[in-house]
Amino acid sequence: MSKPLTLHEDRLFPADKTVRSIARRLYAEVRGLPIISPHGHTDPAWFAGNAPFPDATELLLAPDHYLYRMLYSQGVPLARLGVPSRSGPSHADPREAFRTFAASWKLFRGTPSAMWLTHVFVEVFGFDVALSPETADLYFDSINAQLATDVFRPRALFDRFKLEVLATTESPSDDLRHHRAIRESGWAGQVITAYRPDPVVDVEHEGFGEAMERFAALSREDVSTWRGYLRAHRVRRAAFKDAGATSTDHGHPTARTADLSDAEAEALYQVILSGKATPEQAELFRAQMLTEMAKMSLDDGLVMQIHPGSFRNHNAEVHARFGRDKGADIPTRTEYVRALKPLLDRLGNERDLCVILFTLDESAYSRELAPLAGHYPILKLGPAWWFHDSPEGMRRFREQTTETAGFYNTVGFNDDTRAFLSIPARHDVARRVDAGFLARLVAEHRLDEDDARDLMVDLTYNLPRRAYRLDRSRPAGLAHGA
Amino acid sequence: MSKPLTLHEDRLFPADKTVRSIARRLYAEVRGLPIISPHGHTDPAWFAGNAPFPDATELLLAPDHYLYRMLYSQGVPLARLGVPSRSGPSHADPREAFRTFAASWKLFRGTPSAMWLTHVFVEVFGFDVALSPETADLYFDSINAQLATDVFRPRALFDRFKLEVLATTESPSDDLRHHRAIRESGWAGQVITAYRPDPVVDVEHEGFGEAMERFAALSREDVSTWRGYLRAHRVRRAAFKDAGATSTDHGHPTARTADLSDAEAEALYQVILSGKATPEQAELFRAQMLTEMAKMSLDDGLVMQIHPGSFRNHNAEVHARFGRDKGADIPTRTEYVRALKPLLDRLGNERDLCVILFTLDESAYSRELAPLAGHYPILKLGPAWWFHDSPEGMRRFREQTTETAGFYNTVGFNDDTRAFLSIPARHDVARRVDAGFLARLVAEHRLDEDDARDLMVDLTYNLPRRAYRLDRSRPAGLAHGA
Amino acid sequence: MSKPLTLHEDRLFPADKTVRSIARRLYAEVRGLPIISPHGHTDPAWFAGNAPFPDATELLLAPDHYLYRMLYSQGVPLARLGVPSRSGPSHADPREAFRTFAASWKLFRGTPSAMWLTHVFVEVFGFDVALSPETADLYFDSINAQLATDVFRPRALFDRFKLEVLATTESPSDDLRHHRAIRESGWAGQVITAYRPDPVVDVEHEGFGEAMERFAALSREDVSTWRGYLRAHRVRRAAFKDAGATSTDHGHPTARTADLSDAEAEALYQVILSGKATPEQAELFRAQMLTEMAKMSLDDGLVMQIHPGSFRNHNAEVHARFGRDKGADIPTRTEYVRALKPLLDRLGNERDLCVILFTLDESAYSRELAPLAGHYPILKLGPAWWFHDSPEGMRRFREQTTETAGFYNTVGFNDDTRAFLSIPARHDVARRVDAGFLARLVAEHRLDEDDARDLMVDLTYNLPRRAYRLDRSRPAGLAHGA
Repeated sequence: MSKPLTLHEDRLFPADKTVRSIARRLYAEVRGLPIISPHGHTDPAWFAGNAPFPDATELLLAPDHYLYRMLYSQGVPLARLGVPSRSGPSHADPREAFRTFAASWKLFRGTPSAMWLTHVFVEVFGFDVALSPETADLYFDSINAQLATDVFRPRALFDRFKLEVLATTESPSDDLRHHRAIRESGWAGQVITAYRPDPVVDVEHEGFGEAMERFAALSREDVSTWRGYLRAHRVRRAAFKDAGATSTDHGHPTARTADLSDAEAEALYQVILSGKATPEQAELFRAQMLTEMAKMSLDDGLVMQIHPGSFRNHNAEVHARFGRDKGADIPTRTEYVRALKPLLDRLGNERDLCVILFTLDESAYSRELAPLAGHYPILKLGPAWWFHDSPEGMRRFREQTTETAGFYNTVGFNDDTRAFLSIPARHDVARRVDAGFLARLVAEHRLDEDDARDLMVDLTYNLPRRAYRLDRSRPAGLAHGA
Repeated sequence: MSKPLTLHEDRLFPADKTVRSIARRLYAEVRGLPIISPHGHTDPAWFAGNAPFPDATELLLAPDHYLYRMLYSQGVPLARLGVPSRSGPSHADPREAFRTFAASWKLFRGTPSAMWLTHVFVEVFGFDVALSPETADLYFDSINAQLATDVFRPRALFDRFKLEVLATTESPSDDLRHHRAIRESGWAGQVITAYRPDPVVDVEHEGFGEAMERFAALSREDVSTWRGYLRAHRVRRAAFKDAGATSTDHGHPTARTADLSDAEAEALYQVILSGKATPEQAELFRAQMLTEMAKMSLDDGLVMQIHPGSFRNHNAEVHARFGRDKGADIPTRTEYVRALKPLLDRLGNERDLCVILFTLDESAYSRELAPLAGHYPILKLGPAWWFHDSPEGMRRFREQTTETAGFYNTVGFNDDTRAFLSIPARHDVARRVDAGFLARLVAEHRLDEDDARDLMVDLTYNLPRRAYRLDRSRPAGLAHGA
Repeated sequence: MSKPLTLHEDRLFPADKTVRSIARRLYAEVRGLPIISPHGHTDPAWFAGNAPFPDATELLLAPDHYLYRMLYSQGVPLARLGVPSRSGPSHADPREAFRTFAASWKLFRGTPSAMWLTHVFVEVFGFDVALSPETADLYFDSINAQLATDVFRPRALFDRFKLEVLATTESPSDDLRHHRAIRESGWAGQVITAYRPDPVVDVEHEGFGEAMERFAALSREDVSTWRGYLRAHRVRRAAFKDAGATSTDHGHPTARTADLSDAEAEALYQVILSGKATPEQAELFRAQMLTEMAKMSLDDGLVMQIHPGSFRNHNAEVHARFGRDKGADIPTRTEYVRALKPLLDRLGNERDLCVILFTLDESAYSRELAPLAGHYPILKLGPAWWFHDSPEGMRRFREQTTETAGFYNTVGFNDDTRAFLSIPARHDVARRVDAGFLARLVAEHRLDEDDARDLMVDLTYNLPRRAYRLDRSRPAGLAHGA
C-alpha cells in the first residue's frame, strides 16, 4: 500500500499559530509573482532547441549531484545511477537506476532535495502517491510519458513556471550559439547569459589551455600579451552583454583580490602563460583578475558575483574516473576582510558598481559579510548558497545578516541550479522561509506587518531585479510578454 | 497620512503564548531596576557642562556610525549626513540631513538601530507618528524644541533614565578635567571613567606620538625607558581610579598576549619608541602590554576588559577623508586559546583578578570563550558586543555560552554606546531578550521559574555590579542619591 | 524550607503545543528502548569487581570535570572538592566537599550538568527535595547509604539502566584484565573495550615512553622498528577485538592525516623513538598513524573514531599540580577538508571502512563535516561532543548537519562519559532533543510523522548498532540476555 503524497499548504511555516497565520498572509502576497532567476546553471540548448527532455533518470537523477552524492555516501556506485564518466555515458539501465534511487529515498528525509523533488512530483508531474520501491516503476513510466508530451518541453515549462527571466552561465570560450538561437527563434522567453571567466582565469583549471585558444579565436585578440588578454575580456563581455548578460560570475577557491601595478600584472601574466605558475602565482592571478573584472564592470555595468570557498573535486578517485562537478566539492573556511581589501581600496566607494558576495562558510555571515555589506556601497550579499540553500540555511542567513546589513543590502533569491524542474520548488521554499522569518519579527513586534508585506515583495521580486540590473537593460526583442 | 507609532508591551518576547507569559513575568521583575552602564563611550563633557544638546542631526545622526554606515552602504555620501570630516565640520544643512535620513528609514527595518530609535522617539521624545519623509520636519523641529528645554539637559536625562552608574572611556593622555568638573559640581550622578591605554600602547595608532607626550606630561614620568613607561601607567591608573574608574579597556586587533622577560620587554620598548617597529613588533608589544596591564590590575584592582578583533578603519578612502571610527570597522576571525595562554600561564589562577573577554567572532562563543571562562578563575564573558548587540546576537550569546560557562561567568549587559539617548532602549532590549531566553528554559522545564526570577535580577543588576566591582569602590561623594 | 524536586514529563520538548504533542508521541516510541553506549570512559574495573561505589563525593563530584571546572572558574580550589593531585588523594573531607558543591549548585543553572544530576537525584536516588545548602547532608548521607546496598553495585545498576552494550576505552598498553575478568565471571552484561592508541602514538603525551614499553611487552613485538611497531598494533587490536572491541578511538590535537611512503614513515618513526621529534614531526607522526589505523581497520573491521581539536591541559599550573584531564581542556578551531585529504585519497572510497568524525568546533558542522560525510562512503558524523553534548548543542548539530548529510550519515548518540550514573540521563536528553527536532520538522510539514517515528528508532537504536558494527560481531558468551 503506497503512502499518499501531498504538499501541505503551510509547509515550512513556523508551527506557532500566531506566527503561522502572519506567515500565511505574507506568503499570499508573493505566491503568484513571477520568478526572477538571475543566477543558475541550466542549459541554454534546452530553450534553443526546445527538444523534449529525456527520461526520468537522465533528467532528474544523473545530473543532480545533490542526489547522487548522498547515495554515493551510503555506498551506491555512481555508475549505477546513470552518472556519466570520463570514458563516456553510463551503461546503467535508466529504470534500474531510478529503482535504486527510489529504494534509497529515505536517505533524503529532512533534506532540501526531498522537499524540492516532492514539489516536482506533485506540482510538475501530478503524483499523489509517495516515491517508494513499490512506486518506482510507476514514477519512471509516468514521468517519461509526460516528458514526451509538448507541454513538458522546455519552453512550455518555462512559461508554466512563470519565469520572468532565467540567467544561464557561460564561459568566455562559449560562442553563445544557443542564446543566439533563442533570440533568433522569436520566442519571448527571457533566457540570458552570464559571464563566467574562470576557465580562462584559473590556470589550475584542467581546460585552461583549450579555453584560452577558443577565447582568443572568439575575441579575435592576441592573448599572448596582458593588454591583449584584457581586451579579449572586454570583447567577450560585450558579446555576453549583447546576449542579455547583466552579470559576471567568479568561482574562486578564495575571496582573495589584488591590485598589482601594470608591470607586475604583465609579468605575472607571462608566468601564467608559461605553464610554470606556482600555486601562489595562480592564486595571485585569480586575485588580480577579480579587480580587473571589477574595473571592467565599472565601465560596462555588469554586476559582479563572487562565489568563493569551494574546494573543487576533493575526491581524487571520483575526479579521475568521473570528472569535475561530481558531488565532491567541499566548502572551506573563507576569509573576506583582508582578502577583499585590495579591490575595496581601489573601487569600494564607487556609486555605480555592484559586487555580490556569496559564502559557503556561514561563520562569515555575522562576522565579516554583513559588516562589509553594511558599509561599502559596492557590496551586496547573495542569498544562502549551495549547501546552505535550505530552510535552516536560509533562516541562518537572515538571522545572522539582517541586524547588521539590513534587508536592502541583500539581493533576493538565486536558485543556482541545473535542475530546471526544481526551480519553482526552490523559489517557493525561499518565499516561505522569508515569510516565516518576517512573520516571527512581526509576532515579536520588531517589524510592522505592513512593512513586512512590503519587504516580502521586495525580497521576492524587486531586490533581485534591481541588484542584477534586470530593470535597466533588456536585450531588444527579449521582453517577456511584450 | 502618517502611520501611528507605538512600543508594544510584548516586544521582543517569543511569540509562543506559554513562553511569552513567562517572559512577561520575568521582565516585570527588572523593568523598574536602575541602569548599570559599566562600559560605554558617552562624553563626560556633557555631564560636566550640562549644556543643552544641539539639534536632532548633530545629536542623533551625525555621531552614530550604526546609522550612517547603513546609509553610506546604500550610496548616501557621509557629508550629506552631517558627519564631520578631517577638514572640519560638515557643511550639510542639519534639516536636509535629517530629511535624508528619514527618507531612508526603511533601510533599518529589522535592525537594532530601528528598535533603539523607535524607543527614543516614543519614550524620550513622545512621538506617536512614525518617522517618514512626511514627518521628517515634524520630528526635526519637535526634537530640537525639546532639546532646548531644561528637562532634556544631560543631567536631567541621566536622572530620568535611572542611571545608577555610567562609565565613560578615556585615554591615559586625557586629563580627566570633565570627570573632575562633574565631581566638583556637587551633582550626585555617578559618572565614572575607565582606563583605555590603546593610544599609548598601539604604536600603529595614528596619534601615538602625541598621546605619549601628553602621557609623559600628565604622569610626570620619564617614558623613554620601559620602567618609566610602566610607572607612568601606574600613575595614570591611580588617577583614573581616583576619578571613579573600576576598569580598564583594551581594543586590540587580536587577543594575543605575551610574557616576555624584562630584558626582552625593555628591548622591544626601545624599538617601539624608535618608530621603526615592524607590524609583528607592534603586535608583540600590544600582547606584552595586556599581560602588564593584568599584573597592574592584580595590584590596583581595576577590572580588565579585552575587546579584540576589529579591523579598524578598513575603508582607506573614508579614513583618509573622514578619520577614525566612521563605520568602517570590520570584525575578523579571532583566536583566544593560544592567544591568551601567556597571560593565563602567568595569572590565570589568581583569585582576585577579573578579565572580561569580548568578541566580534561569534564562532568563538561555544568553541573557545565559554570553555575558557568555564574554567579559569580570572575570566568572565562580556555580553554580545557591537554588531552582535542585537536581539538575535544576544540570543546566540546565551544559547552558545550558557551550557558551558553558565550564567555566573557572564557579567550582564554593556550598552557600549556613545548614543546617550539610546541607553535605556539598549538595556531594555537586553532585559527583554534575557527574559525571553530564560522563559524558554522555564517552558522547556530546564529551569525553575523562581531560579529564572533570581537570574533575571542577577543578569540585570547584580552581575554587572559585582563583575565591575561597582559594589566595592565608590569615589567619595559620588554615591547616587546619597 | 526545601524546594520540591521533580522531573517534568515534558522536559526538553519545545513549548509550542503542536510541536510538543508530536514530540511526546515520538519520544514514547523510544523511551523504553535499551541503551546502546558505543563510546565512553567508564572504568571496566567497576564491572569486573562489582564492588560498591564509594561515597557521593568520590563517585559524583571528584571525578567529574564538568562539575569541578565550573566551581574552579568561580574560585573554588580543586583540593577542596576532593580532586586528587599528583601528590596523592585529596585531603578534603568528603562531606565538606559535598557541602561546598551544594552551596554552589546555582552556578549550574541552565547547564547540562544540572539536568543530568537532577535526573540522577530523582531517578537513581529517589530524592524529592532539591539540592541546596540545607539538604547537602541529607543528600550526602542518603546517597552513601544507598551506594552501600547491593542494588547500587555496578552490575545491578548496569541492568537497571537497561544497558544493552557499554564500551569503555583502553590504551594498547592496558592488559585488559578487567575485561577478561568480566567475561570470565559469567555475568551477561556486555561491557566491551575500544582501542585508543594515543599513548603510544602521541610522543608529546607525558607517558609515551612507559606506554611503549608495556605495548612492546604485551604485544611481544619489537617496536624499535616501524614494521614491528605496526605489527604490535595489529596484535593489540586483535586482542582488543577478542575483548569485544568494535572500534578504535583517536584523540588528536588536529584532524591532520598523512600518507607517507614506507621509507618516509620508517625514518619518521626513528625520529619519534629518538626523543628528538619536533612538534611538527610529532604532529606528522600522529597524522600518519591515522592513515595506518584506517588501513588496519580495513583489514580487521574495527570502526575508527576521530576526536580532534582539544587543546589538552591548557592550564599549566593545574596540570603541574593535578595532572591531566582536570577540566582545563579547551577546544580549538579545527580544519577537516585539507587535513583528511591524504587519508581520503588513500581510502575514502572504500565500501567496508567506517570513520566517525567528531568536532569541538561547531563552525565545521555545516561548512566541512556535513559536506564530507554527505559524499565520502567511509565517513559518518559522530554526535555533538563534550561541550556540545547539551540540548542547545545537539539541536545545533541536527540543524547544521541534517540538510546536507541527512540523518543516515550520523551514528546516534554517544554518552562519552566516565560518570556512570549519568548515562541514562544523557541518553534521555538525546532522545528528547531528537524528538523535539523531528517534531518541529513534522509540524512544519517537512517530514511525515511516520517517517519521523521510523527515524526516532533509527537514531536511538539502529544507527549506533549498525555504525559501530554491534550488529555484526559479538564476543562469544557476552550476548546480553542470551
